Amino acid sequence: MTNTGITNDTHADTHTDANATRTIAAYAALTAKSPLQKTTVERRTVGEHDIVIDVRFSGICHSDIHQVNEDWGTGIFPMVPGHEIAGVVSEVGPGVTKWKAGDRVGVGCFVDSCRTCDNCRAGQEQYCTGGATFTYNAIGRDGRPTYGGYAKEVVVDENYALRIPDNLPLDAAAPLLCAGITLYSPLTHWGAGPGKKVAIVGLGGLGHMGVKIAHALGADVTVLSQSLRKREDGVKLGADDYRATSDPATFTELAGRFDLVVNTVSADLDLSAYLGLLRTDGTLVQVGAPEKPVSVNAHALLLGRRSLAGSMIGGLRATQDMLDFCGEHGITAEIELIRADQINEAYERVLASDVRYRFVIDAATI
Amino acid sequence: MTNTGITNDTHADTHTDANATRTIAAYAALTAKSPLQKTTVERRTVGEHDIVIDVRFSGICHSDIHQVNEDWGTGIFPMVPGHEIAGVVSEVGPGVTKWKAGDRVGVGCFVDSCRTCDNCRAGQEQYCTGGATFTYNAIGRDGRPTYGGYAKEVVVDENYALRIPDNLPLDAAAPLLCAGITLYSPLTHWGAGPGKKVAIVGLGGLGHMGVKIAHALGADVTVLSQSLRKREDGVKLGADDYRATSDPATFTELAGRFDLVVNTVSADLDLSAYLGLLRTDGTLVQVGAPEKPVSVNAHALLLGRRSLAGSMIGGLRATQDMLDFCGEHGITAEIELIRADQINEAYERVLASDVRYRFVIDAATI
Repeated sequence: MTNTGITNDTHADTHTDANATRTIAAYAALTAKSPLQKTTVERRTVGEHDIVIDVRFSGICHSDIHQVNEDWGTGIFPMVPGHEIAGVVSEVGPGVTKWKAGDRVGVGCFVDSCRTCDNCRAGQEQYCTGGATFTYNAIGRDGRPTYGGYAKEVVVDENYALRIPDNLPLDAAAPLLCAGITLYSPLTHWGAGPGKKVAIVGLGGLGHMGVKIAHALGADVTVLSQSLRKREDGVKLGADDYRATSDPATFTELAGRFDLVVNTVSADLDLSAYLGLLRTDGTLVQVGAPEKPVSVNAHALLLGRRSLAGSMIGGLRATQDMLDFCGEHGITAEIELIRADQINEAYERVLASDVRYRFVIDAATI
Repeated sequence: MTNTGITNDTHADTHTDANATRTIAAYAALTAKSPLQKTTVERRTVGEHDIVIDVRFSGICHSDIHQVNEDWGTGIFPMVPGHEIAGVVSEVGPGVTKWKAGDRVGVGCFVDSCRTCDNCRAGQEQYCTGGATFTYNAIGRDGRPTYGGYAKEVVVDENYALRIPDNLPLDAAAPLLCAGITLYSPLTHWGAGPGKKVAIVGLGGLGHMGVKIAHALGADVTVLSQSLRKREDGVKLGADDYRATSDPATFTELAGRFDLVVNTVSADLDLSAYLGLLRTDGTLVQVGAPEKPVSVNAHALLLGRRSLAGSMIGGLRATQDMLDFCGEHGITAEIELIRADQINEAYERVLASDVRYRFVIDAATI
């Protein structure tokens, strides 16, 4: 456990004027399940250690839709989704040391955490036992609701922003803040690299980042997709092999093949069949969270000392590592840039899996 | 992957006279689900690389009952169970180099494997992709049914016998060959040791070995048992803490506490609740195989990058390591020694969980 760069003593005095707010244009769902519409929300003004980010682009993650629809529990409304934020620092608090106006920065799924628990100290802030403060649909440590990136501006503590490498365009870099780290973290944690065989289940917003990153890490990459419909894309993105999971032969031919299988699909899959694709000591990692419990045959785990694991985004340090890695390898998401008034239509298309591979909102249109 | 000490070139000529047999007194189930009775079976005579072991003691494992009852599939009858075998070498084939008459040896769950696959070469013969030859209820590579340790003698290839340290009594050492390695393997693989908190779920034949071994490895050990009925035993065996899983407070008080939880219970448990007891990056290992699929909430895996894994016995090298470790630490099973004519009664008591902690058959009574 090494120092995360977050110092505890600066936390108490972060916000100089707790009551001051700034009015910000945003797209929000005013009530659960309602379409998003243009509105304004009140954010805190810049505190001692805060920065204001002029949002340039904001990715649309499937989980935004789940939260608007209260699929995962009661939401806080108005809700401004968006946790794949790329922008430029426009203002810094007097105590800020890491950033200056003009810096290109990103914000991911969380904007604060307790900073004192074992997980925070280990740079695993996403697992903060005190509860990480999520970027939207949460109550911040200032007592106010948090609002996400479908907005003109966000105000965050300087320690929870990440540097976006200069060579990456901000629009296509935005999805790295969630989709990118969601795949980079398990791929690196479970050792994807030269000599390792990795399968990515599902070629969507998450999966296509997995293929790019696993390939750049040097692993042999197979896409396991329901059909061969996106095969050409998969190969272009870096896949060495591409198989249809609708074909039972896939599961016999690839039995015992992979060191690591990363499942990006939230739908109910026969995970025991996917466990059968693992070598001895292999791991199947869930990065999506199916609503129903997942069920596996214990024999599929016992035979070959296999593991079924879960992984959720990544900590600040890992997220910065991911951005730097993507900078070195020129990796960004494949995106479809949309205007803010197309968000509701984009949601429909996400639900229909009709996007290659990530919608990104141009914040200039908010 | 290092050399396992098994050389492939000696395999083909292992058996000098494939048709010769020796008649051996044994206890067998003549048909599925029938009580065990005294009988004789034909084993091969000693081949080039075989040793004959004068069985002294044979442990009773719950899986013996499952196999006699065909709970796991069609059995081969007559069936002589027993894969916790401790005895003394009485005869060696002309090509045997590892053993001489009088050596104290054990045989565990398998007596052969392909010796050429990646798993065999890595010393993980239990996961042999060509199929390990199990000690009984299997067809050996000589084409004959295999018969286990409820017998006067066993004949096995010299490479599949293990040395039992001189300081360990053979009766109480017998259960190490299955129960011992079943726990030693996951405990060492997942790093149980000083500074690590380990929970053992269930204090039966497997669990009590887990407590002894985890304690000797230097870990902080908690027993999670349905009730506090065996608490005193658990503490004597080396447990630092002992909690009842029937008390809901156990799951709140111990939330996020353990690096490793080893579940020895085959009954249907709420595994999501047990996953909640793990720290970040912790692992819940199944060593028993429930008949029904196991079901977990994916969020319990995602929150804290937790894993649900399986582990099945251990390879030859690990089994010898385990025996040597038990020798150094004076570890054996807590046993109840029985006569062969008490096997059927012992089976009833195993099914009623009425044994502290392992029945061992005195082979002198066969």
